[in-house]
Amino acid sequence: MEVAFLLLLFSLFSLSSSEAKVIPRFPSKLSASDSANTNHQPFKTKYFTQILDHFNFNPQSYQTFQQKYLINDSFWGGATNNSPIFVYTGNEGDINWFAQNTGFMFDIAPHFKALLVFLEHGFYGKSIPFGGDKKIAYSNSSTLGYLSSTQALADYATLIIDLKKNLSATESPVVVFGGSYGGMLAAWFRLKYPHVAIGALASSAPILSFENIISPYSFNRIITRDFRSESENCYKVIKGSWQKIEEKARQHGGLEELRKSFRICKNYINVDALESWLSTAYIYTAMTDYPTPSNFLSPLPAYPVKQMCKAIDDRTAGNDMFAKLYGALNIYYNYSGSSTCFNLDDDSDPHGLGEWSWQTCTEMIMPVSGNDKESIFPASQWNYNDMVSLCNSLFGAHPRPNWITTQFGGHSIERVLKRFGSNIIFFNGLRDPWSGGGVLKNVSNTIIAIVAEEGAHHVDLRFSTSEDPKWLQDVRKTEVNIIANWISQYYYDLALL
Amino acid sequence: MEVAFLLLLFSLFSLSSSEAKVIPRFPSKLSASDSANTNHQPFKTKYFTQILDHFNFNPQSYQTFQQKYLINDSFWGGATNNSPIFVYTGNEGDINWFAQNTGFMFDIAPHFKALLVFLEHGFYGKSIPFGGDKKIAYSNSSTLGYLSSTQALADYATLIIDLKKNLSATESPVVVFGGSYGGMLAAWFRLKYPHVAIGALASSAPILSFENIISPYSFNRIITRDFRSESENCYKVIKGSWQKIEEKARQHGGLEELRKSFRICKNYINVDALESWLSTAYIYTAMTDYPTPSNFLSPLPAYPVKQMCKAIDDRTAGNDMFAKLYGALNIYYNYSGSSTCFNLDDDSDPHGLGEWSWQTCTEMIMPVSGNDKESIFPASQWNYNDMVSLCNSLFGAHPRPNWITTQFGGHSIERVLKRFGSNIIFFNGLRDPWSGGGVLKNVSNTIIAIVAEEGAHHVDLRFSTSEDPKWLQDVRKTEVNIIANWISQYYYDLALL
Repeated sequence: MEVAFLLLLFSLFSLSSSEAKVIPRFPSKLSASDSANTNHQPFKTKYFTQILDHFNFNPQSYQTFQQKYLINDSFWGGATNNSPIFVYTGNEGDINWFAQNTGFMFDIAPHFKALLVFLEHGFYGKSIPFGGDKKIAYSNSSTLGYLSSTQALADYATLIIDLKKNLSATESPVVVFGGSYGGMLAAWFRLKYPHVAIGALASSAPILSFENIISPYSFNRIITRDFRSESENCYKVIKGSWQKIEEKARQHGGLEELRKSFRICKNYINVDALESWLSTAYIYTAMTDYPTPSNFLSPLPAYPVKQMCKAIDDRTAGNDMFAKLYGALNIYYNYSGSSTCFNLDDDSDPHGLGEWSWQTCTEMIMPVSGNDKESIFPASQWNYNDMVSLCNSLFGAHPRPNWITTQFGGHSIERVLKRFGSNIIFFNGLRDPWSGGGVLKNVSNTIIAIVAEEGAHHVDLRFSTSEDPKWLQDVRKTEVNIIANWISQYYYDLALL
Repeated sequence: MEVAFLLLLFSLFSLSSSEAKVIPRFPSKLSASDSANTNHQPFKTKYFTQILDHFNFNPQSYQTFQQKYLINDSFWGGATNNSPIFVYTGNEGDINWFAQNTGFMFDIAPHFKALLVFLEHGFYGKSIPFGGDKKIAYSNSSTLGYLSSTQALADYATLIIDLKKNLSATESPVVVFGGSYGGMLAAWFRLKYPHVAIGALASSAPILSFENIISPYSFNRIITRDFRSESENCYKVIKGSWQKIEEKARQHGGLEELRKSFRICKNYINVDALESWLSTAYIYTAMTDYPTPSNFLSPLPAYPVKQMCKAIDDRTAGNDMFAKLYGALNIYYNYSGSSTCFNLDDDSDPHGLGEWSWQTCTEMIMPVSGNDKESIFPASQWNYNDMVSLCNSLFGAHPRPNWITTQFGGHSIERVLKRFGSNIIFFNGLRDPWSGGGVLKNVSNTIIAIVAEEGAHHVDLRFSTSEDPKWLQDVRKTEVNIIANWISQYYYDLALL
């Protein structure tokens, strides 16, 4: 159970009990343990000696670190055939975890005779600068300062170019893939390094969730819509529960009652922690509302939002609202049935708040935690200044809220990219709260939006199963066709130029 | 006379007397003095508080400096009309100097009702980090490390976005212009920041002079061709002169004779310094072989290569080869006739070698100093390792020879940009030695190469004169038409999207 980390993320941005109980962050650190599935992955694990800072030439910038990557050449047609290279641009976590949840690349590799490469993002997993020592790397803003999306993209370009040279495969086309933050990186990589990647599949990449491009309410509106789409009662029960929980908490012995209702282990409980624990379940269940059983953030049945609402709507379960909510929560937190109680404690080091939190305190300023009146969560406003103070006090970090749009754009993206760039697929599932920040309309003939009404967070990238609904099979077919087209076009140009 | 600085550049890369006597560097620092023409420039000088390091979030990166820019709104149609903004992406030097030599922007501004902005590159001119203190900023690799093309581009993006906000002109289209290194920056700016600039005129931008994309001989081959095109005798005399000079220098009293022949002031003279002084004149005269009198690097008559060869070929001047060479040299070094003797001394601080030298020691690794047998200069090889040692000993700098192509591409540019990017004009004049590293063929319908057989280094960007030849008038007309097309297309899209 990774509850502690979720709460941690919550505590970072929820400053008072009157504010939103929601942390619309990417699910960083929610990784399966490193040892769990790695052994079954058909990868070689390799390390590349990467430079610490590409954009500076001072002595510190020349320090190096060992960047981890995974490679599978069992499907590859080889360098002499210029067979393609499919690269996953790793996001905020252990790269094995992303490889395990990006089965799509395995599924399609044989068809394309593609080499598979999964790149780990600097400062995550095993790719830790400063001698691989996390205590040093995460110790303060002087060391964490090197953790950024632009460095990661330059890392990827450097590694891919070197890898291709070493494989004598300089003319093999590279296609990049990524989901969530990894999808943002994939899209940005194609835009910034067109000489390295011929195209990008950017799945559930909320590249528009910055500055004032989209409404800060968008994220939670989508979660609200997800639950409401299952049943109006489910929505109303959850929406009404926050007040009931707060009333109960104010009663004598109320917190202890709540503790028992939600099977919280015998430790200190406060209403903020409880509400964030509940919110987390709703958020991540909505994000991973997949049509088949999954184990991305947590083991879950197919259509878990539906299952949650079923528990809440269950007429046979009496009138105890907390019991019904518990039933819903149990689907997210305890689908495997192994937990006897839940631990809400946060005993982490406040200076080890997590690399993703650092990124959200410096460049990844996504105002996505506000709630309007219709929200399934309590109404609240995104408060930038509160975040600034908190980031400063926690990390000594100073947000640069305009940096991402300065570096990568976002405003009027349809106009900007209508006549610039090519070969990007933006996939979004509309049940995914992050889809509000996604590119949902075709920008040009070659910058394509694929939108799946019933899709969740980068569902297209998951391993295919025999139970996949037709719409999902169709999405993947479309993606394969587009990628095949990029590759044929590349070979055509290669023969000419 | 800026001879000292030229020699300085020479001494940086000419390691032994047997090597090339050629420094194919951009003419950094060869600026007219700050006070000379500035007063006549119709600019307001402004300063923008710029961040030191965009790509890091450590405390040092948040330091700021005052970035200078020039602005002229006398032609501007204003924000309410979304009238365009023409921005010069400054290169390695005082921005006033580039503004003075980019009259094209003034000439066309009234037609476009354009706002004119000239941005100074960080670490040059007055735009000095570390409190504006050059002694600190240039003191060592820890401070100079922040000087790079990627930082400069991010500076430009940040400044332009802020300026547009302040002018309430967020929807005014921006077109960037630049020549030489500034042209490289303009092209790269359009490629990396398409959301900030709708197009770029990149004049004489040798973006392919990196790694092994072009022959290292290319630069000097073009200079050779320039002189040879005037007369075979001129070429032969110069080509043969190096040996004659070296023979003379070995004779008793020979150096003193050479000193007198070339009117070198009464200071120490060695044959290397003399040869580099001669080479410099040939190189920069070839670069600035303009069809009208000019004063870019040095006051020069129209067609100065022709004038040099005329002096060398002059049958009335007797048989003294050194006297004839002196006559040629005098055109470059003393066209104004004010010098009575030339000073070859280099008494600069070895730790103040110049910001551009720093850039050539870190990222701007352009192997362009080799000479083949046909060369007008002595045969030589580009030696990367020698450069590495020298850069290390001079600055503690460690070249990253693959960085520019990693970050900006260059290899197979026609294939890469055939289906990516748009709205770039690459102008090159084939008499310009840098044109060998330029984009000389159309890449796509919107990435256009304009090649002028008789053109020199960014001649198109100069103020028009009544004596401009027809081909030059035509080049500028074509450029204006293309830029006008970008802008109409932008307005069309703006109305739609």
